[in-house]
Amino acid sequence: MFRSFFLLFSMLAVAASAQTAKRPKNVILLIGDGMGVNHVYAAQLANKAPIHLNRFPYLGLSTTHPIRDFVTDSGAGGTALAIGVKTKNGAVGVDSSGTPHPSLAELAKQHKLATGIVTTCDITDATPADFYAHVKSRNEHEAIAGQMVKSGLDVVIGGGMKYFVQRKDGQNLLETFRKNGYTVADTSADFTTAKGGKLVAFTAFVNPKKVLEGRGPELRQGVEKALTVLNQNKNGFFLMAEGSQIDWGGHANDLKYILTETLDFDQAVGAALDFAEKDGETLVIVTADHETGGLSLTNGDWRNGVVEGKFTWTNHTANPVPVFAFGPGAELFRGIFPNTDVHQKIRTAWWGK
Amino acid sequence: MFRSFFLLFSMLAVAASAQTAKRPKNVILLIGDGMGVNHVYAAQLANKAPIHLNRFPYLGLSTTHPIRDFVTDSGAGGTALAIGVKTKNGAVGVDSSGTPHPSLAELAKQHKLATGIVTTCDITDATPADFYAHVKSRNEHEAIAGQMVKSGLDVVIGGGMKYFVQRKDGQNLLETFRKNGYTVADTSADFTTAKGGKLVAFTAFVNPKKVLEGRGPELRQGVEKALTVLNQNKNGFFLMAEGSQIDWGGHANDLKYILTETLDFDQAVGAALDFAEKDGETLVIVTADHETGGLSLTNGDWRNGVVEGKFTWTNHTANPVPVFAFGPGAELFRGIFPNTDVHQKIRTAWWGK
Repeated sequence: MFRSFFLLFSMLAVAASAQTAKRPKNVILLIGDGMGVNHVYAAQLANKAPIHLNRFPYLGLSTTHPIRDFVTDSGAGGTALAIGVKTKNGAVGVDSSGTPHPSLAELAKQHKLATGIVTTCDITDATPADFYAHVKSRNEHEAIAGQMVKSGLDVVIGGGMKYFVQRKDGQNLLETFRKNGYTVADTSADFTTAKGGKLVAFTAFVNPKKVLEGRGPELRQGVEKALTVLNQNKNGFFLMAEGSQIDWGGHANDLKYILTETLDFDQAVGAALDFAEKDGETLVIVTADHETGGLSLTNGDWRNGVVEGKFTWTNHTANPVPVFAFGPGAELFRGIFPNTDVHQKIRTAWWGK
Repeated sequence: MFRSFFLLFSMLAVAASAQTAKRPKNVILLIGDGMGVNHVYAAQLANKAPIHLNRFPYLGLSTTHPIRDFVTDSGAGGTALAIGVKTKNGAVGVDSSGTPHPSLAELAKQHKLATGIVTTCDITDATPADFYAHVKSRNEHEAIAGQMVKSGLDVVIGGGMKYFVQRKDGQNLLETFRKNGYTVADTSADFTTAKGGKLVAFTAFVNPKKVLEGRGPELRQGVEKALTVLNQNKNGFFLMAEGSQIDWGGHANDLKYILTETLDFDQAVGAALDFAEKDGETLVIVTADHETGGLSLTNGDWRNGVVEGKFTWTNHTANPVPVFAFGPGAELFRGIFPNTDVHQKIRTAWWGK
């Protein structure tokens, strides 16, 4: 009797242990551009209640300097996350010698997974571009748009239609997407009701609006839409979604701008977590490419959601940024590590190397 | 054959699982006063190599506001860690109505464990006092000194001899300590060679020097000495050690002051970790009572250990502070939680409630 109880208990322990070491089928990486530790806590205070970012069981800190400079831009910061290599500021998906390395999206594609990108900036901006393009300068928007057409991404939702239709080479890349079998929702269409397997949707001709100027819940809706499409692939998927304008609020030293964009981003984080909780095979990572503004929290009334901050300057800083992790492999994301380790830890969780 | 292999594997899994849930015998709590996330990373950069704070497997963030205000002082911040209750700024070991609650040191004493405190400020200053005294105002140094005599602490090492020998009530509390069986090392003695079971050692008459002014490795030596004495108790021990002047560097907006004090504190952290690694039954927690200065890292040369920062102001901030955890129970210290949870998590790890 004792022996069988012991055996049963042992089997449960083995099962529990095996479950911890389970590999994720899907990975969702959410990037709050410019979102430091204090941005997150300010949003939590403004919300007067826990936010979705408080639902994560594991927390780490990522350090963000590029290969030579002390403070990173979004090109090098996003590239470190996307391809796992420290590079020069301004670079997109290439190392400091200009050599391209495969991004998490491209590696996922090689593993026959579906891939998608959702942003609240132009889809050709540095951070999203880091995941599908390889150019020496983030300013090459039209070249980046051209590379997107060839990227094989299954879902793309964001701003920047301009770089696909008003091009020096005269091409209309939306037509190319259509020829390649994509459903294309231009800025006049509602992407949430789009049908079909592959989707390119534009939320703005250029530079999507701020939440403060009336932008709707496009980011959360975009993540939900992308998850529906991507989850049709039985092998799994990779999704990168970015809350782009947290950074713009930091550059403007505008705490209200930061708070509204961080809480908007948090809604998308919630959508990703809801999916992952139900699915059970999805690793969700939330981090930032760098901190913007040097925000510190100096005054307010925490009982009434009033937060006041002071900024160090209007640039990025080298302050470590938070890394939140949920799902199979989440236990790898602990302590203080370089941003390139975020990339490597995702690969280790996913494929063991 | 297969069955016995399976059984062996199962037993190993059970053993591993039991080990994770093991309760600590000893707890070492190290407080970097005013030490924010950026202070830690700046010290890591200045060191040009990982520091002891990088050895911790678990990381959390603690939020520090007091019961009513937005920004805490060391009295309320340390009290939250010591007694697990949010209180008014300036309070020491009492809730906002002035009612005392037992500190971690006092709870440890109730469990027949040895207890000790080591600091680089006056031993009657707010943070150390939070762990053995209960007064409405941190300014009551002489009353705090009087309460220390009755506290039953086994080891006390720090500054502030003045409040024990130059008192309005004319008492010489060092004599009282001697009568109570303590070895007393005054400022002229070398505490590292002191003999005997219980020890009170003063490193300064008042306000210990900065590292920059020639203070030696007293904090690390104090922790090592305390561990030797406290570890004689077979039931276990509680030790609180504080790197006090990280905060003073923050108030002075002096990054060099911050870096030297943080690296000095880190040496004490290393001594605690070395003990805990060898011992296997010790939970080590490192955190801060609050951040000071609103430090952001803006420039430097990370390859050569050059760090430059900018400060928000000369006061404390409400920025979340790091919580590092090592040893049995360390896995509880994850995510973002209020400072009172640091206290509660230590109790849960130690005694299950």
